[in-house]
Amino acid sequence: HKRNHHSVGIIGAPFSKGQPRDGVEKGPDLIRSDGLVEKLKGQGCSVRDYGNLDFESVPNDEPVGKVKRPRAVGRANEKLAGAVHAIKKDGHTCVLLGGDHSLAIGSILGHAAAQKDLCVVWVDAHADINTPLTSPTGNIHGQPVSYLLRELQSKIPVMPGFAWIKPCISAQDIVYIGLRDVDPEEHYILKYLGIKTFSMTEVDHLGIAKVMEETCDHIFSKVKRPIHLSYDIDALDPSVSPATGTPVVGGLTYREGIYIAEKICQTGLLSAVDMVEVNPKRGRTEDEISSTVKAAIDVLLACFGRVREGNHSLDYRMPQP
Amino acid sequence: HKRNHHSVGIIGAPFSKGQPRDGVEKGPDLIRSDGLVEKLKGQGCSVRDYGNLDFESVPNDEPVGKVKRPRAVGRANEKLAGAVHAIKKDGHTCVLLGGDHSLAIGSILGHAAAQKDLCVVWVDAHADINTPLTSPTGNIHGQPVSYLLRELQSKIPVMPGFAWIKPCISAQDIVYIGLRDVDPEEHYILKYLGIKTFSMTEVDHLGIAKVMEETCDHIFSKVKRPIHLSYDIDALDPSVSPATGTPVVGGLTYREGIYIAEKICQTGLLSAVDMVEVNPKRGRTEDEISSTVKAAIDVLLACFGRVREGNHSLDYRMPQP
Amino acid sequence: HKRNHHSVGIIGAPFSKGQPRDGVEKGPDLIRSDGLVEKLKGQGCSVRDYGNLDFESVPNDEPVGKVKRPRAVGRANEKLAGAVHAIKKDGHTCVLLGGDHSLAIGSILGHAAAQKDLCVVWVDAHADINTPLTSPTGNIHGQPVSYLLRELQSKIPVMPGFAWIKPCISAQDIVYIGLRDVDPEEHYILKYLGIKTFSMTEVDHLGIAKVMEETCDHIFSKVKRPIHLSYDIDALDPSVSPATGTPVVGGLTYREGIYIAEKICQTGLLSAVDMVEVNPKRGRTEDEISSTVKAAIDVLLACFGRVREGNHSLDYRMPQP
Ligand SMILES: [Mn+2]
Ligand SMILES: [Mn+2]
Ligand SMILES: [Mn+2]
Ligand SMILES: [Mn+2]
Ligand SMILES: [Mn+2]
Ligand SMILES: [Mn+2]
Repeated sequence: HKRNHHSVGIIGAPFSKGQPRDGVEKGPDLIRSDGLVEKLKGQGCSVRDYGNLDFESVPNDEPVGKVKRPRAVGRANEKLAGAVHAIKKDGHTCVLLGGDHSLAIGSILGHAAAQKDLCVVWVDAHADINTPLTSPTGNIHGQPVSYLLRELQSKIPVMPGFAWIKPCISAQDIVYIGLRDVDPEEHYILKYLGIKTFSMTEVDHLGIAKVMEETCDHIFSKVKRPIHLSYDIDALDPSVSPATGTPVVGGLTYREGIYIAEKICQTGLLSAVDMVEVNPKRGRTEDEISSTVKAAIDVLLACFGRVREGNHSLDYRMPQP
Repeated sequence: HKRNHHSVGIIGAPFSKGQPRDGVEKGPDLIRSDGLVEKLKGQGCSVRDYGNLDFESVPNDEPVGKVKRPRAVGRANEKLAGAVHAIKKDGHTCVLLGGDHSLAIGSILGHAAAQKDLCVVWVDAHADINTPLTSPTGNIHGQPVSYLLRELQSKIPVMPGFAWIKPCISAQDIVYIGLRDVDPEEHYILKYLGIKTFSMTEVDHLGIAKVMEETCDHIFSKVKRPIHLSYDIDALDPSVSPATGTPVVGGLTYREGIYIAEKICQTGLLSAVDMVEVNPKRGRTEDEISSTVKAAIDVLLACFGRVREGNHSLDYRMPQP
Repeated sequence: HKRNHHSVGIIGAPFSKGQPRDGVEKGPDLIRSDGLVEKLKGQGCSVRDYGNLDFESVPNDEPVGKVKRPRAVGRANEKLAGAVHAIKKDGHTCVLLGGDHSLAIGSILGHAAAQKDLCVVWVDAHADINTPLTSPTGNIHGQPVSYLLRELQSKIPVMPGFAWIKPCISAQDIVYIGLRDVDPEEHYILKYLGIKTFSMTEVDHLGIAKVMEETCDHIFSKVKRPIHLSYDIDALDPSVSPATGTPVVGGLTYREGIYIAEKICQTGLLSAVDMVEVNPKRGRTEDEISSTVKAAIDVLLACFGRVREGNHSLDYRMPQP
């Protein structure tokens, strides 16, 4: 029970073009303004904030097939991949503050460039595994996993802005937790590739403790390795985190959401985290916004050593009268 | 994981005279207007909507003892029993949209007329097993089970409108889930008859997964047989389904409510469902009403094949670039 | 399943000087006005209400070190200890209605004066185990356990108003349930003394049923003995009991809170209960206040025999037509 000395590098990505709803680009600053850096330092982390990436607007970004704004999403992720790679080279656990979940493309590819053999824990109401050709909406935040999986490479058409992307994980390297709104095409892919999933039905069936045990068994089945935690705030129930673009009823409780982060932290192998889809414009009241932001921050604090039973320094001595 | 091809027959019963609160007669149309039929078709069911029953008003329906409006309740259920019988003869899984829970009398008797050897899973905050002589209120929606049980036949007085009723199930053929507001007289009956109950204490103790396992063990202990699921929306917590006549704190979560339906569906033996006690006039806001209706619909969708992990057609082929 | 014949003695302590927030002194009358006594009688308890204690104001109650209002807190607790002792001598299970949690000092000491060998189940978001020298705030409601533990006696400075206090329990005699906001100094003490704790992480990991099993195993490891249940309403989630001074997200559900009380009742060894920190002035709406009060009352009713599956008298006979 010693205090944890995590070294954390934070990168903000105020980007929303992976989906149609305005506001999610405000996530990084909103999460910071609620004290993320101070709270991480307060629990013993060293923190370097790399600031926000600056994304230039991309003219003439016409759809390719159904896929919307491919050039903007491709370039933003290329930039992000470079930033994440640099943060990993600097020796930090990287925290991406999104922005929408299309940013996982750059975050995971940048992470993989620095860190071989990573695995991914994807916490989300959605599988985000549509290919450009299966996507019913064309929004790329519903597709990031398809670009990352070696097994799907032959299913991905050439797209402007995406030439730099080479898949970096295999189907057995990713585990999903929290699924409850999966397209039929996505379900086909998940089953066809034999991807490990814990939908809300499995969470109800097994309980979150067993889910985390089986998650660790799966990702560490061969060897212990670095974890990329990609956390979509919509994995949590809308009563906890309503301020998000695509809320779905029947989500993880606040406690389950924190428990996941505590257990990932406990492995000692967390290497990068995405916290995405916090969208203040989707909150109907100040309470809805602050509850969502607080949940996002509390998940991140748990990722970096905060435990609910409390914590103390090894060198603490009790005062005597 | 193939899509399910359920054949569903829907009958609406806009009836509220089994209890004193106006509004529950609006349940059937409210649930339909939120898209029940379209959503069932969308998930691969074939659906026939038999419309709403028309209940004539019954003059001079004086109480018999404490029991209120026995003639109206008796005749409405006789009509409903006929309709359910016909729907079962047509080969459908029957969905009753209530209306108050007194309608389970007709729904279960009509079902039993077509289907020998059925069992009942009764999901409710209440046991609804008072006899006309034990009922503290005289409202028949608190009594339906007493008319259905062979073991209680000798305890039921003669009542106008009830002559057509012959009990059709035995005490070992029914399981309760969600109980938390049980009258002392009801508790006596439950214990005296040795009825299997999972009150909220058992749900807390065992977890909903074990509750469903034991429920299936109990109803299928001798032989697999058709299930009548009688689902009172007040089984769910008032934070989920507030728009109902007799809400009770400490109910099933949305997720537990859905899990029950998923597991019943998985048995492949669901033969009829009642969805009752949705009462828009008891919602204090539009949100309260829509949350209640959405929960009712989501339970029904889960009854007919919707699963949270997703689903795809067997013949699906991925598009190639 | 016979009705329980608990003999309950109620004492109100409208006291708030263990913490800075006005309003918690209204707890006793608020809980009574919602029908506590009538409801207890209704479920078969005999109840004697000893009314409210009257606490004289203490002039010149200057802080001692950081500790605020030590004389007022010390004297109030001395008075309370006498009252609880008397109620125990009268043969009742004692119910303290607080007031803030500093009152546990008097309640447990008064209880221990009448009842050797008691153990304590402390249900709280907080450990309340700071010593006067470790407390970051100086509020005594965050310190009561430190005065009660033999092992900490050498760490407690002399304070005006506290001379009468002699510790009455040892570290192995107390179990915590619900912790999620523990100061580092408190965490040190808990670990240093090897105190059994079930933080919300353990509740998530084990489930509330296993937590209660292990709680009983721990307190009854040597011998069955009387239980003092000290229940801080802030143990429950703020969505259930928001009207309290120091709410913390991620708390016990209403159902978990009730389950704890049911299991403690089932031991047959409940000897005293504190229900503290209900503060109507911290509720933002009438609903928030009434939800908090209702939760407090429902916990107390479960402490004294109310069970969710229902209950009936042994001599009940069914009416025949
Ligand atoms: Mn999502
Ligand atoms: Mn996502
Ligand atoms: Mn009911
Ligand atoms: Mn009912
Ligand atoms: Mn507390
Ligand atoms: Mn406390």
